[in-house]
Amino acid sequence: MKVTIDICLIPMSTELSISKYIVACQEIFLAAGLNHHLHAFGTNVEGEWDEVFDAVKKCHQKVHDMGAARISSSLRIGTRTDKTQGLQDKVESVQKQLKMG
Amino acid sequence: MKVTIDICLIPMSTELSISKYIVACQEIFLAAGLNHHLHAFGTNVEGEWDEVFDAVKKCHQKVHDMGAARISSSLRIGTRTDKTQGLQDKVESVQKQLKMG
Amino acid sequence: MKVTIDICLIPMSTELSISKYIVACQEIFLAAGLNHHLHAFGTNVEGEWDEVFDAVKKCHQKVHDMGAARISSSLRIGTRTDKTQGLQDKVESVQKQLKMG
Amino acid sequence: MKVTIDICLIPMSTELSISKYIVACQEIFLAAGLNHHLHAFGTNVEGEWDEVFDAVKKCHQKVHDMGAARISSSLRIGTRTDKTQGLQDKVESVQKQLKMG
Repeated sequence: MKVTIDICLIPMSTELSISKYIVACQEIFLAAGLNHHLHAFGTNVEGEWDEVFDAVKKCHQKVHDMGAARISSSLRIGTRTDKTQGLQDKVESVQKQLKMG
Repeated sequence: MKVTIDICLIPMSTELSISKYIVACQEIFLAAGLNHHLHAFGTNVEGEWDEVFDAVKKCHQKVHDMGAARISSSLRIGTRTDKTQGLQDKVESVQKQLKMG
Repeated sequence: MKVTIDICLIPMSTELSISKYIVACQEIFLAAGLNHHLHAFGTNVEGEWDEVFDAVKKCHQKVHDMGAARISSSLRIGTRTDKTQGLQDKVESVQKQLKMG
Repeated sequence: MKVTIDICLIPMSTELSISKYIVACQEIFLAAGLNHHLHAFGTNVEGEWDEVFDAVKKCHQKVHDMGAARISSSLRIGTRTDKTQGLQDKVESVQKQLKMG
């Protein structure tokens, strides 16, 4: 089962700037060979269900290892059986209609 | 690694009432022996990381099998290394302070 | 327009226990006369759109006033035009089917 | 109070492709003069709290007007009092560290 997620991981009770933790998560998605896209409030990740959620687990483990005692993540999870749709397809579908409008 | 999640699963492009899909997910959490609590906008589930996410995967698979071609879920994921805190502990901690206030 | 939300407010860079901030938000929903229900990973709130979002804004302002320099909230927002459905209706609809199943 | 949100609006019980509804929301953010960025699982929007949430309300109203009887949105809301940080600053802060790593 293919899945597209959007993850926003929040280490609690740490420094105000959390970018070093986000960097560590990007490196995990990269090492896993998962197609991903960082935006200002999270990261889109797509791939096989088990590989994507293995990476999510590794993010929590890594950020705990880096010293954050408490983590709260917000995820969106999308699956569909009617067709395969990549990250870029979804954005382009909207952008194309915006330009034509 | 213990985890507490809150999941709100949304089958798209189906009937307006989605309660039969929510019922199917409750049965999955029950069969998995996971402590869970249904509220009006999702379900709290707690347990070992792998067991909880195995149940989440089964929810998506089951709801697809029931005929929903597209699913979008919203999850919150909480992990902490400083202490173990059950679903009920978190609610009681707040309710106790509200009564004293 | 009536709305049902589920809010999970996370003060960042504070103490590990955030219950005092959650208590402050409960008091805001109570003072606003909004029907609300606390669970282990957020709070359901229902009412008129403007009143509900005025309370959400007050929560962010109050938690900043209490000393949290950064807040990240996760919200679910539900609106529907086909019928009115209260917080309790949604839970009972599922629980009734679970008992019959 | 400045705010950054990430919104993923889901019309339920409509066609499988929801891009026309997402297009309508982009047009609302554009007409409101709000800085926004579309990604594959939502849209980042930043601005003054009242203007941003006025746009969110208009999105729900517009999508109902277009025929969706039920909508479920997932939002992340970020506010901070320590500094002003734009959408692009957040992404660049992470990307810079990734390149140096």
